[in-house]
Amino acid sequence: MAKKIVECVPNFSEGRNQAVMDSIIAEIQSVPGITVLSSLADADHNRLDVSYLGEPEAVKQAAFLACKKAAELIDMEKHRGQHPRMGATDVIPFIPIQNVSMAECVQYANEVGKRIGDELRIPVYLYESAAKTPARTNLADVRRGEYEGIKAEFQTNPSRKPDYGPTRMHASAGFTAVGARMPLIAFNVNLATADVSIAKAIAKAVREKDGGLPHVKAMGFEIREKGIVQVSMNLVNYLETPIFKAFEAVKKEAEKHGVQITESEIVGMVPLQALVDTSAFYLKLESFTSDQVIEARLIE
Amino acid sequence: MAKKIVECVPNFSEGRNQAVMDSIIAEIQSVPGITVLSSLADADHNRLDVSYLGEPEAVKQAAFLACKKAAELIDMEKHRGQHPRMGATDVIPFIPIQNVSMAECVQYANEVGKRIGDELRIPVYLYESAAKTPARTNLADVRRGEYEGIKAEFQTNPSRKPDYGPTRMHASAGFTAVGARMPLIAFNVNLATADVSIAKAIAKAVREKDGGLPHVKAMGFEIREKGIVQVSMNLVNYLETPIFKAFEAVKKEAEKHGVQITESEIVGMVPLQALVDTSAFYLKLESFTSDQVIEARLIE
Repeated sequence: MAKKIVECVPNFSEGRNQAVMDSIIAEIQSVPGITVLSSLADADHNRLDVSYLGEPEAVKQAAFLACKKAAELIDMEKHRGQHPRMGATDVIPFIPIQNVSMAECVQYANEVGKRIGDELRIPVYLYESAAKTPARTNLADVRRGEYEGIKAEFQTNPSRKPDYGPTRMHASAGFTAVGARMPLIAFNVNLATADVSIAKAIAKAVREKDGGLPHVKAMGFEIREKGIVQVSMNLVNYLETPIFKAFEAVKKEAEKHGVQITESEIVGMVPLQALVDTSAFYLKLESFTSDQVIEARLIE
Repeated sequence: MAKKIVECVPNFSEGRNQAVMDSIIAEIQSVPGITVLSSLADADHNRLDVSYLGEPEAVKQAAFLACKKAAELIDMEKHRGQHPRMGATDVIPFIPIQNVSMAECVQYANEVGKRIGDELRIPVYLYESAAKTPARTNLADVRRGEYEGIKAEFQTNPSRKPDYGPTRMHASAGFTAVGARMPLIAFNVNLATADVSIAKAIAKAVREKDGGLPHVKAMGFEIREKGIVQVSMNLVNYLETPIFKAFEAVKKEAEKHGVQITESEIVGMVPLQALVDTSAFYLKLESFTSDQVIEARLIE
């Protein structure tokens, strides 16, 4: 039986002070069995994104330790940055990668959320698949007003009551959103035209918001230096709407406009299953699983 | 930098005596860091195929120990079986999987071949990519005459001089072929017709032997229980002739006959890179590498 592997992508409200960022990352790396995939600091956003993988217990422990360290080192009373934010540790999503269900990731979010609330005395909101009410599914709704706005009405507005932790504010660490979600695939398709209205029309046709494919977000852009346009997509559930389905939908819409696809790109990481599904679709493989991938046997 | 990962698929001349087979497999598993992918015993062939993975030093050590154990337990003077064979350990191919070149696998074949020759006093022939002369590239040529035929002319025919080891025969362990080759992908494509002549014609059109695609072996078969026919292929260099190229070639030939592909199958294992290449081809991915596969980061 293959190991359970979970990804976690916590975001912290510090993107400038290297010593603070190093201390937070060191907490994550201190847990045995953790593989850090990436850490991206943005000085304008004043924000640090860390992505790491491991088995569930290790991933939960690393999330808690990093949140604890961030609460010690980051003061939300002094924090400024372009990206919306509400806490020293802003968000902690748990993401199923191998042999783990979304329900299990929801469970991990509850366990870590409760521990952050109980032990660190930071109010915690559960979001996305871990949300206990529809009003908290969307992170933007949970974070509305940002740190200052939530602080102003935290004691008085019942809709701000946290899912875990105290109903009294933390002095400096703000609020943390803990959740569970699918891996996100950033997938861009370039079109052989300089007419951005075509990219915008295709984006509209394929995105969920306007009646297109479920779990697809899409925008049309001009790539001026290449003289082409791009349909830029986020696939937020690659099992329900696989990459190939999004690609074929863009291709079909492009054909309506008499436009060719020149190339596409996957930005960042992709789960193995997405390649298994893409290969199975195009090669018409009748029964093909990730267990047949040689390298996958090394992480069992 | 990703770890070097090598596969080894030794074949032993014992497919009936479970205790002997268990002893050989135990030698392989005794080496730390080895993952056994499969072990397949065939009683009619009287032969055991073991497939395992690991870093180079561990893989080489496991091959040597298994060969040593097989020489202790298997007597070629008494061996009978349907499959062509020449030694207690019949073949030891080293196969590049991750961050390893074919040249390195050739080096491993030389190191293990020399050690088997020197320490176990078994004559060793280097084959496939490790062959030192074209006459030894093809395993069937090396094994021509099988154990009995090679034994009969070993002392007298200069073409039987081993690459490593003594020019006097081993009393019971026979001869061992040690080599390096690419992973083999077994890929079958089913066609919506009961006319086996179409499958045979397509197989002939796509296989290397008859002027088709390089590194493709193909045969046409009838699958009577399904009322269809199959083009059964072995892709012996998936980097030079990828799966999608073989699939598209069969599809094109099938269209000439007015026949549809119903489904295909990959039998057994496939390297991750084959899925990366297939996805990149069909999705037109401009720069996509296996480093972008989340799970691949767990085996670095």
